[in-house]
Amino acid sequence: MHTVSRFSLTSLKHPIVQAPMAGGPSTPALAAAVRQAGGLGFLGAGYKTVDAVREDIAALRALADGPFGVNLFAPPGPPGDAAAVERFASELSGEAQRYGTDLGTPRHDDDDWQAKLKLMRDLAVPVVSFTFGGPARGDVRDLQAAGCAVWITVTTPEEAARAAEAGPDALVVQGTEAGGHRATFDDAAPGDIGLLALLQMVIAVTDLPLVATGGIASGRGVAAVLAAGAAAAQIGTAFMLCPEAATAPAHREAIAAPGTTALTRAFTGRTARGIINRWLREHDADAPSAYPDVNHLTAKIRAAARSQGDPDGFHLWAGQAHTLAEPIPAGELVRRLADEARTALRAAAER
Amino acid sequence: MHTVSRFSLTSLKHPIVQAPMAGGPSTPALAAAVRQAGGLGFLGAGYKTVDAVREDIAALRALADGPFGVNLFAPPGPPGDAAAVERFASELSGEAQRYGTDLGTPRHDDDDWQAKLKLMRDLAVPVVSFTFGGPARGDVRDLQAAGCAVWITVTTPEEAARAAEAGPDALVVQGTEAGGHRATFDDAAPGDIGLLALLQMVIAVTDLPLVATGGIASGRGVAAVLAAGAAAAQIGTAFMLCPEAATAPAHREAIAAPGTTALTRAFTGRTARGIINRWLREHDADAPSAYPDVNHLTAKIRAAARSQGDPDGFHLWAGQAHTLAEPIPAGELVRRLADEARTALRAAAER
Repeated sequence: MHTVSRFSLTSLKHPIVQAPMAGGPSTPALAAAVRQAGGLGFLGAGYKTVDAVREDIAALRALADGPFGVNLFAPPGPPGDAAAVERFASELSGEAQRYGTDLGTPRHDDDDWQAKLKLMRDLAVPVVSFTFGGPARGDVRDLQAAGCAVWITVTTPEEAARAAEAGPDALVVQGTEAGGHRATFDDAAPGDIGLLALLQMVIAVTDLPLVATGGIASGRGVAAVLAAGAAAAQIGTAFMLCPEAATAPAHREAIAAPGTTALTRAFTGRTARGIINRWLREHDADAPSAYPDVNHLTAKIRAAARSQGDPDGFHLWAGQAHTLAEPIPAGELVRRLADEARTALRAAAER
Repeated sequence: MHTVSRFSLTSLKHPIVQAPMAGGPSTPALAAAVRQAGGLGFLGAGYKTVDAVREDIAALRALADGPFGVNLFAPPGPPGDAAAVERFASELSGEAQRYGTDLGTPRHDDDDWQAKLKLMRDLAVPVVSFTFGGPARGDVRDLQAAGCAVWITVTTPEEAARAAEAGPDALVVQGTEAGGHRATFDDAAPGDIGLLALLQMVIAVTDLPLVATGGIASGRGVAAVLAAGAAAAQIGTAFMLCPEAATAPAHREAIAAPGTTALTRAFTGRTARGIINRWLREHDADAPSAYPDVNHLTAKIRAAARSQGDPDGFHLWAGQAHTLAEPIPAGELVRRLADEARTALRAAAER
């Protein structure tokens, strides 16, 4: 087989990866700004049509040369408990009324998995990362043959060992601190391992390059994961206040304010970390593990609340260190994080 | 006022602190071995009589010269819900039968707080650390005047800001990864912030020296927290398999085996992290927040299960990275962690 040269983390000027943030914040402009500053930008393909993903990639390529990544959601497992989804739907009818819209129809789909895999190959996307599980070994090989480096996101040492068997180029190691969805393969056991503990355990089971993610919001945080052995830090929430991000105004305000986060299935039927708000408090207890069914059920209501600027009616995804995010241009943030990380590492090494 | 010179973290040969592990594992022999290797050893005063703590300190001083620490439990808040404790007691009667012993009498005491503070001052204990809340400003000043450096353990940036107001010498920053009790001031909100996210947030609110703890089990983990800005790493679980620790045999086996940990109030009425076992699974849901009442209620049963070698009948405190612990002498572990940390920091700084 002809060997295609694929993206390597060692080629980055700065060991900073912008996390894919599906459902809004990630934009071609954000990924381009990160790339131009010497980091690696990402697009989120989750929730989007194949055509929309294709357009995003074209837009990004028009804005910036060089490597970038696209994140795909692996297909969900078997459907959740239909009766529990039904009960949850009744519970949410008041929310639909409150925001003047309708409940969506719960549906168990695979986010157009095969078509998105094909798109990645056709466009030779430099890095394709996966959340909610890994692709099969054959899919990994096909992507790699098309020039795509494959990253699989893991949340436990057991997932790391399983993911490594598929032959990826790197693992994204997601600590419990991370905002948005837990990447866990099985939502029945979403886990709660902190990033630093997880990095040490994953390094003990694989030699693959590791991209650390979850609660990294400063140069010191970047320095810490590099010292722990990661090849790069992947950062999400800290980019959400950048002007290039499409974060909703009410979401920006919540990120900047003091506030506690929690893991919940209340918004999408799959465990994710968000800032505690009314919806989370009222619906967390009854939310079933049923993704993407519940996501479809609640999508219109959440979109309505978001456009009405009500932070109590939609998912305020955020990592645990969200209060450290700053509203500065993404390129400036990349450079600042890299500089501060270098300074922190030098200071610690010289002690 | 005459200024007494107090312990400073910069005086340590290696930036390694052995965590106090009340209720068994911590021994004078363990603290002495850590000290002799160039780290800082700790004794746990929690659950012990004042006389027993005095004896431990004398034993440690006979074994090793130089600084060491003693950890105190701050007094608990108001008593928990007596009816809930009563219901929990009925639920546990089967456990008492199973292990051939009796339920203890729930009691709400302060672990002899004032007498222990006085003992610390009288013996000029070099470092006195606090868990479950901070001492009042006057108590901090009195300890410092007696030559004791004061450390307060925190689990959120808010606790860090509050603790800093009491004028301590350092803060111990405990991530959710840590084994044993959460140090949280208020058990009603035990929190779940990962160590790395927490360190970054605490550094943003205080200039005090920080001791990082929670899931640190390798030299890379030590390197990471130093890069993040901590002055030292405090390590508990990784010392629990050392021959100098008094960890029960069944507890040692559980730490060495694969196994998931969880936060629970099922053993003591206060949130703590342990390896999931039968007791945790069966009693977690009904355990009230009532410490130390529930601790007294369950103590005899847990002691019986432990002495019978049944890992399903007592608290298997362990941090999230427990599988990385190794059964090697404590001094060797300190030197190895320090060497590996230096190597990791140099490698990361030179990239």
